[in-house]
Amino acid sequence: MKKDRNEDTNIVNNQISEKAKLYGIGVGPGDPKLITLRAVEILQAIQVVAIPKSKMERESVAWEIAKSHCPSGVSILELEMPMTADESILQAAWHTAAEKIKEELCQGHSVAFLTLGDPSLYSTYSYLLAILRDQLEPDQIETIPGITAMAAAAAQVNWPLATGDEPLVVLPGIEGLEEYEQYPNLVLMKVSRNLPDVLNHIQRTGSQAVLATRVGQAGEDVRLLGPEEVLEKVDYLSLVLCKKPQS
Amino acid sequence: MKKDRNEDTNIVNNQISEKAKLYGIGVGPGDPKLITLRAVEILQAIQVVAIPKSKMERESVAWEIAKSHCPSGVSILELEMPMTADESILQAAWHTAAEKIKEELCQGHSVAFLTLGDPSLYSTYSYLLAILRDQLEPDQIETIPGITAMAAAAAQVNWPLATGDEPLVVLPGIEGLEEYEQYPNLVLMKVSRNLPDVLNHIQRTGSQAVLATRVGQAGEDVRLLGPEEVLEKVDYLSLVLCKKPQS
Repeated sequence: MKKDRNEDTNIVNNQISEKAKLYGIGVGPGDPKLITLRAVEILQAIQVVAIPKSKMERESVAWEIAKSHCPSGVSILELEMPMTADESILQAAWHTAAEKIKEELCQGHSVAFLTLGDPSLYSTYSYLLAILRDQLEPDQIETIPGITAMAAAAAQVNWPLATGDEPLVVLPGIEGLEEYEQYPNLVLMKVSRNLPDVLNHIQRTGSQAVLATRVGQAGEDVRLLGPEEVLEKVDYLSLVLCKKPQS
Repeated sequence: MKKDRNEDTNIVNNQISEKAKLYGIGVGPGDPKLITLRAVEILQAIQVVAIPKSKMERESVAWEIAKSHCPSGVSILELEMPMTADESILQAAWHTAAEKIKEELCQGHSVAFLTLGDPSLYSTYSYLLAILRDQLEPDQIETIPGITAMAAAAAQVNWPLATGDEPLVVLPGIEGLEEYEQYPNLVLMKVSRNLPDVLNHIQRTGSQAVLATRVGQAGEDVRLLGPEEVLEKVDYLSLVLCKKPQS
């Protein structure tokens, strides 16, 4: 390994420094204590923290959890993520974000991309990885799994997510829950998108259900949903655990 | 709260001490660094660690992770868990285990029940909870979620478990995977039980698949499975991530 290397000499023919790595870090669902020792260890030595920036404040919750572990001089790399379903706009944003991360790596700076929950589950990180996987060496990427909101919600109410031979089905705010009526354990994520469908499902199947909003965060609300529950609106960081009655 | 209480005075009319708590702790998938700060904090002050004992060594992996955090004088409570599918034998074992935990709580000792992975997902802890939930005060039980083996496996290969509007389906070693052919993301747990079915599924659906054995533990093996893979046997701590090709 070269000694006395300074920042400039890390960039050789626009190649990415062999030392710089991209870390995709799951910081857990919100409770600052539900982060792993590995995540803390990386954050303590990180040079750049990448935070996707959108209208929502999910990202600042992730930063709140991470920042107490980061060195005081850490750089923040904000990545614009437009709130849109337009695939071409999203693709462009992901490519721009991937370029910005690569620029940091080229300068020899390791980058920690923060994800609330787990980076492998419905996360922007997955789209960045799809772009960067082909451009970086395999040992330049390390993904650190995180505690999911669904695991934290189940723990909070002391429910199992699934036991024995039962399947567990996780659905991200989609319509058409009729298709999933036969399954004993559903986790319905992002229920602010399809709330009437979710309430109908609970009533139709006679399921026991828990609504978990902002688990472990400020404004946490975790409670049972009755079969006749009337709810017009829920916070966008809400999920529902659904259990069919055992026959 | 009473002062100068000693062990004996904690037992009042066979009631459980208000101070003693049952902690269901997920210690993560095997890598000692994939435990949470909250789990470490509890283990550092725990009096009794409960470990289900069976022929398998899953439990000793959990203890290996936990023990470096526990006080040197910690008591170990071994709970016999017979390896059987006989529901009545299992029920009897769970009730005996629950009684033993309650005895410790009655003596004013807090108990940490260890689970490899997450305590809410296919864990013995769920069966104990089902018994103890009605016998303890709600604030005497705290479940601490853990990193699952599936999240760790996905992180290891930098795969998403699910993105966008896709469902995620988790199946615990069951037969009849034909029913699940339409789903883009399957996590097949306990594949040592239904390996021919799993390999058939991969071939039939043309899925990309990763076999993850003992993620983060000694003997770890994480690798792609080809469509014509021939495997006669896998370790019992193995799971398969399956992704259908996008159409």
